[in-house]
Amino acid sequence: MTATEDNLPTLTSVREASQRIRPLVHLTPVLESEAISQRVGTKVSFKCENFQKVGAFKFRGACNAVFSLDEAQAQHGFITHSSGNHAQALALAAKLRGARATIVMPDNAPVIKRRAVEGYGGDIHMCESTQAAREATVDALQAKAPKTLVHPYDDNRIIAGQGTAALELLSQAPTVDAIMAPVGGGGLLAGSALAATSVPGVRTFGAEPAQADDAARSFHAGERIEEAVPNTIADGLRTCLGVKNFAIIQSGVSDILTVSEDAIVEAMRLIWERMKVIAEPSGAVPLAVLLEHGAPAGCKHIGLIVSGGNVDLDKLPWMSGHE
Amino acid sequence: MTATEDNLPTLTSVREASQRIRPLVHLTPVLESEAISQRVGTKVSFKCENFQKVGAFKFRGACNAVFSLDEAQAQHGFITHSSGNHAQALALAAKLRGARATIVMPDNAPVIKRRAVEGYGGDIHMCESTQAAREATVDALQAKAPKTLVHPYDDNRIIAGQGTAALELLSQAPTVDAIMAPVGGGGLLAGSALAATSVPGVRTFGAEPAQADDAARSFHAGERIEEAVPNTIADGLRTCLGVKNFAIIQSGVSDILTVSEDAIVEAMRLIWERMKVIAEPSGAVPLAVLLEHGAPAGCKHIGLIVSGGNVDLDKLPWMSGHE
Repeated sequence: MTATEDNLPTLTSVREASQRIRPLVHLTPVLESEAISQRVGTKVSFKCENFQKVGAFKFRGACNAVFSLDEAQAQHGFITHSSGNHAQALALAAKLRGARATIVMPDNAPVIKRRAVEGYGGDIHMCESTQAAREATVDALQAKAPKTLVHPYDDNRIIAGQGTAALELLSQAPTVDAIMAPVGGGGLLAGSALAATSVPGVRTFGAEPAQADDAARSFHAGERIEEAVPNTIADGLRTCLGVKNFAIIQSGVSDILTVSEDAIVEAMRLIWERMKVIAEPSGAVPLAVLLEHGAPAGCKHIGLIVSGGNVDLDKLPWMSGHE
Repeated sequence: MTATEDNLPTLTSVREASQRIRPLVHLTPVLESEAISQRVGTKVSFKCENFQKVGAFKFRGACNAVFSLDEAQAQHGFITHSSGNHAQALALAAKLRGARATIVMPDNAPVIKRRAVEGYGGDIHMCESTQAAREATVDALQAKAPKTLVHPYDDNRIIAGQGTAALELLSQAPTVDAIMAPVGGGGLLAGSALAATSVPGVRTFGAEPAQADDAARSFHAGERIEEAVPNTIADGLRTCLGVKNFAIIQSGVSDILTVSEDAIVEAMRLIWERMKVIAEPSGAVPLAVLLEHGAPAGCKHIGLIVSGGNVDLDKLPWMSGHE
């Protein structure tokens, strides 16, 4: 499978998504910490998508996907397989649309995540935790009653929706000349790169754990390399870069930088202590890049996207006994 | 000592303070959580003063005190005794003014708090941890070189400064018809009550730990009762209600409600989990009141002031082994 220019979303798609989802999403604040800016040596602003509904930017894409369909399509319902934030996001977006969302979840998914999806009214189908089992379960459900499949990242409407966070950031912090977003499947980074073209001269950077660096390797190799064994505390970034996402990132992103696990935990704790904001490990990866590598050359004001804040407060990485 | 109407701050004082400190303080965001509003049964907005500089509303009052003096006075410097957020707030405000701040701290104050004051350039003088020793140390320093003493709460400029948070809240969330603030010394609650008079019909409520309930008892008795032995996790609320604060609260506050320690911890965790915001125990006391008592009768939209976010991330109340 390859992606060509014709079937990819554009800045216009992001702007349309922004109009569409505005009444449904939180306009999340942009926060700053002088202490962090001083330490990095460059002004840093944080777009707090951890304050978004369901606690992550994922709600933007899901909303855009669910609300861009006509009523007849919506009434057939939506389906996805996910154990993470996308599952909750699709369930809530469908609920707001008055439609059904079917979520295929691996049977080893944490109970807390199942409860959250149930709380938003999602229909959960459990399956074994392999990729094959997930896909077979979706196929079997689709054969019975077809629904709109909403992929968590390799989807035009999802990418356009995720880009709306960066579009807001650029309007909230107009002196930002570079955006940095974490990259897992690449929905947020690709969408951010599209949004960044709305302001001439703004560059977009990706931030990735060194222990799940398929996006950085793909970007530097010029071809999509599938990750072998991601092994990072940043659980939201263990997925492999999508096809459409790679195509957009390849042309629109200036660089993808990687960081150590220690830097991720240090950045996470710094955000908690200095910003008084709960970022999940994935959401701290861009700051980790700034701590390890400094800001990109020539950058005077960088905007970081704090992608989410869903953590288990009983298992914090700095707690003794935590693995 | 009694306080009369003539020497108390007014709504005008709060408005002047707001003008004075606007370039220096963060305009903190107002956040909402549908889950929390649903649970309370009334719309709840959170004014996030944990995002304020030094991590607490205290910076507002200190800024107003430091910047309301003329240059000659400022150059003599400022002095206070405090081991908490007020010490950091005064040190930073003085630094921004280009003046010196002398902070008398008890020798059992946590090292982290001393470091923070030093980081803002404050001159620290240690003393024994008794009230008498603190006052004697201040007196001795004042005898050598008099400075402007800035009391942490029983001070007109402090009260007016703290009131600016509620003034902002009412303009950011115009449908708010009740404000609830935690009460310790009473600077924040008294200032909030003054600010609330800017919008007809807005009521002000105080929230206090049952195990440090001198303000509630004073309010209901109609006379100031000094706390015997406060014993609460809400370390910011262990102080005794000030004289000026009591006079303003007595006439401007609708009620002061008290809550259990368990409710405080539950509310704190709920804010962390649902809002992705780090509130210190004191900052969670108003939500604890709503969880235990519900919203005040007739209230359709309540604004809570999250007073601060300074917690030790290695000693969270839900961690095993924590006392």
